Amino acid sequence: MTRFALTVEYDGRPFMGWQRQKHGPSVQAALEAAVTAVTGESAAVHAAGRTDAGVHGLGMRAHVDIAKPIAPFRLMEALNARLRPAPVAVLACEAVADDWHARFSCLGRAYEYRIVNRRAPLTWETGLAWQVPQPLDSDAMAAAAALLVGRHDFTTFRSAHCQADSPVRTLDRLSVTRIGERVAVQAAARSFLHHQVRSMVGCLALVGMGRWSVADVADALAARDRARLGLNAPPDGLFFMSAVY
Amino acid sequence: MTRFALTVEYDGRPFMGWQRQKHGPSVQAALEAAVTAVTGESAAVHAAGRTDAGVHGLGMRAHVDIAKPIAPFRLMEALNARLRPAPVAVLACEAVADDWHARFSCLGRAYEYRIVNRRAPLTWETGLAWQVPQPLDSDAMAAAAALLVGRHDFTTFRSAHCQADSPVRTLDRLSVTRIGERVAVQAAARSFLHHQVRSMVGCLALVGMGRWSVADVADALAARDRARLGLNAPPDGLFFMSAVY
Repeated sequence: MTRFALTVEYDGRPFMGWQRQKHGPSVQAALEAAVTAVTGESAAVHAAGRTDAGVHGLGMRAHVDIAKPIAPFRLMEALNARLRPAPVAVLACEAVADDWHARFSCLGRAYEYRIVNRRAPLTWETGLAWQVPQPLDSDAMAAAAALLVGRHDFTTFRSAHCQADSPVRTLDRLSVTRIGERVAVQAAARSFLHHQVRSMVGCLALVGMGRWSVADVADALAARDRARLGLNAPPDGLFFMSAVY
Repeated sequence: MTRFALTVEYDGRPFMGWQRQKHGPSVQAALEAAVTAVTGESAAVHAAGRTDAGVHGLGMRAHVDIAKPIAPFRLMEALNARLRPAPVAVLACEAVADDWHARFSCLGRAYEYRIVNRRAPLTWETGLAWQVPQPLDSDAMAAAAALLVGRHDFTTFRSAHCQADSPVRTLDRLSVTRIGERVAVQAAARSFLHHQVRSMVGCLALVGMGRWSVADVADALAARDRARLGLNAPPDGLFFMSAVY
């Protein structure tokens, strides 16, 4: 049995999320079906992050155990051939130690949230970004983002369905950068709570629109109360970028 | 009658190209139908460039004449409302002089061609880039591109269906830049021949793959013979970026 680490890219639009579901397509099920088609084995594919419906992966990491002898490059090519036409691709594949775990060995995760700040609707990018028509003050958003960096109880920014034991997380980075009409929020932490990035981005957007002050974000954080969340950003703009081991 | 200049973005995937066709959807027909819906007038929309099927526009310029009194901002908003769900959006709209012509007043056009250079298939970007699996030497591509800049007879790089009077064009810029797996070719000229950018990119890709030398590109140009074209790149990766007036 060999454990393979995979780097996976996917378009989240047609999926109910990473995790296998009884009632619809998932990235995990697409990969597991491809593994079975290539090896004849039924194997579970585990990921660094179980992204929600409509969330995308550019550098998701995952692992799978395979009994059949196969070289990593050959496995990657065979999986990609079997994945078509699903918008899921294996970008890299390597054999790793048996105790390497895509989720539990992961020391850091990075997300990017993409906002297109303009009046006009999206065209080629529908479902790949959040279109915000009101002008956003990205400097104010960056000031509010700085308040969230560090170790905090993120209860306000956590989904009611979050299964984590503790609402305390250490946010290593939350930056806001604007290039023309495009505003990107980059977030990095060892791990995130369910909906944490989207919840933080939603509140930063309220600050950008002038509907919230920077102090309102500090108050919402300090309240440790989900009811104080201003806005949860849609999944469209969220991309899982990379994982650190 | 007021002439309005439009800046238009579109996803070329569902269209037979810019130009109105009897047998399928076009960007021009989508815009003209929106103008009629907003104004009750049937008006022709003229563009700086009549892009082919599958080619995209990020900053296409166009104009239309409208009799009904309407403010530019209001027209832009109304067109965008009527264009949905077609992936066409008006990014800007202004009233211009009656002799301003999106095509004939245009002094320069810029295109970008996007290549994703990797083994893995595309996911979110299918139809929005050309996936080239063989490793591309972008430095060699840049050297070959430099040979094409300037005033030349581009017969080799011209479609058999090109309607231009002369095959001579002055290419102001043809640059090749790589960022990670992404190779972008940027082209600028007063005007281009039909298929010129895709034909140039196809030959540059052959150089990048090592199948052609830089000298082969010079020979193909000097031959002034369409039969000497090495490869025409697919429309997927081509974006009309901007027009200068």
